[in-house]
Amino acid sequence: MKFKLSILGSSGAMPFKDRYPTAQVLNVHEQLFLLDSGEGTQMRMSKFRVKRGKINHIFITHLHGDHIFGLPGLLTSFGMNYRTEALHIYSPPGLQQMIDGLFPDADKGPPFEIHYHELDTNAQELVFENKILTVHSIPLYHGIPCNGYLFQEKKLSRKMIREKIEEYSIPFPDIPSIKDGADWTDIDGNIIPNDELTTPAAEPRSYAFCTDTAYNENLIPIIEGVDLLYHEATFLHEDLDKAIKTNHTTALQAATLAKKAKVGKLIIGHYSARYEELDAHLAEARKVFPDTYLAYDGAVFEIAH
Amino acid sequence: MKFKLSILGSSGAMPFKDRYPTAQVLNVHEQLFLLDSGEGTQMRMSKFRVKRGKINHIFITHLHGDHIFGLPGLLTSFGMNYRTEALHIYSPPGLQQMIDGLFPDADKGPPFEIHYHELDTNAQELVFENKILTVHSIPLYHGIPCNGYLFQEKKLSRKMIREKIEEYSIPFPDIPSIKDGADWTDIDGNIIPNDELTTPAAEPRSYAFCTDTAYNENLIPIIEGVDLLYHEATFLHEDLDKAIKTNHTTALQAATLAKKAKVGKLIIGHYSARYEELDAHLAEARKVFPDTYLAYDGAVFEIAH
Repeated sequence: MKFKLSILGSSGAMPFKDRYPTAQVLNVHEQLFLLDSGEGTQMRMSKFRVKRGKINHIFITHLHGDHIFGLPGLLTSFGMNYRTEALHIYSPPGLQQMIDGLFPDADKGPPFEIHYHELDTNAQELVFENKILTVHSIPLYHGIPCNGYLFQEKKLSRKMIREKIEEYSIPFPDIPSIKDGADWTDIDGNIIPNDELTTPAAEPRSYAFCTDTAYNENLIPIIEGVDLLYHEATFLHEDLDKAIKTNHTTALQAATLAKKAKVGKLIIGHYSARYEELDAHLAEARKVFPDTYLAYDGAVFEIAH
Repeated sequence: MKFKLSILGSSGAMPFKDRYPTAQVLNVHEQLFLLDSGEGTQMRMSKFRVKRGKINHIFITHLHGDHIFGLPGLLTSFGMNYRTEALHIYSPPGLQQMIDGLFPDADKGPPFEIHYHELDTNAQELVFENKILTVHSIPLYHGIPCNGYLFQEKKLSRKMIREKIEEYSIPFPDIPSIKDGADWTDIDGNIIPNDELTTPAAEPRSYAFCTDTAYNENLIPIIEGVDLLYHEATFLHEDLDKAIKTNHTTALQAATLAKKAKVGKLIIGHYSARYEELDAHLAEARKVFPDTYLAYDGAVFEIAH
């Protein structure tokens, strides 16, 4: 069961060489979720072989162009690919108006339903839930309404020990309840305890997507213990003044937050175009939090079981 | 003196692999003119090393997304690059409203003046003129307001024969009028005829940009004899029914028009994503008009003197 993050764009506000603006795809059990959609998202999907048809939910952090200007083209191409399924887009208020303005002839817009879900960016709330995961919003601090997203896999089933099915001749209809932890009673009334039939479920996995934001320790309780944290690191710490002025974070700060929140792994990205090379970002962050990795366009981060 | 066309995007409505949506840059004497601005234009400029700061005029054919969705990001990046010069954008009516809608906080939009020039797409009129060239609109037939553009270099000066300057000790202030064709009178009153001092001016060069459009012979008198014609060829002629239905052109039709208008060279592009390979487009067009070339992202077409 996959839990895989693909980076489509790792740049900050301005694209720079091979770094396109922010866009990511999270694959949870082959359900694909798009996180932000900077200019060129659809080209990046082609290049990195993302199956865009599997995307039914798009989560937007805020309405700055480098996080949304890929959306109009993507919606158009969905339509040209004969999409009929409804699409859900979650974002701070105002996105629908922007998109609708680009398709002034109502009948010429995307030929499928788009449901815009406007979020209260000051609240931390459940914005999406299905059988396999929940998504909560995370208030961020970027000077305009902005929120990140916390993806949490739901409790997974215990794993059946295959040989036991045969050994006890367990009928298939009984298996779901055993996977949910129930003991099993055989035809003679003997109770077989669950832990003889199953091995423990794998731990549910989690991903927190935090961009764009100033350094803020209010995030710690929300993202505490996540397996994977993406946190913007637009600047090096030597440019802290610029980070403060523009409501962004330095690599050092991102690592500090990762450490304080005891996350599993930190990915940094959203680099300013002023930095051609990113070695210094990585070194700076790893001094504080060794399990840090650089986002780059085409990078894949997978949490395997 | 350059007259050079760079293709930034050669695809039709949907980007396909390495083919991005329509965008081109025409360099006339180091003045750069952007023609259409599909999604990813600014990334293509980086990749193909276009000096975007030299662009002060953008010519848009029509308001379909594959011709304009690169504009918001480009304008944003101009601003982040500290652009202060005014920018002129020529297009059918309605573009400003679309762009303004993407920058709802007036003070957060691009920090330079943008002059929108709305064109009457039914007229063939002078839309821009400076010392080196004129630009006329070309009515096109695409089912929505749409016009192409005809770039014509102005009459060039005759070329001074350098040795003659020395031989007759011609003062520099007299040279401009000689280049314009005047004879020259020396200190003793001897008239030196112009054709002893100069060689003829090179022929002014011209480029016609015709996309998107159905095949229409009304174009012929407008584009007759241009050195370089870009004409869309979205479909192969075996898909003529699709071309007619969508107000596009086939490769065969584009070549026919080039032949009838006696142009110098034809470039075809705006290919539908249904065609992975383009050999058939080229073969089909060359049967009718041998001097046909395929547009591809990164291609450069130069008319040298």
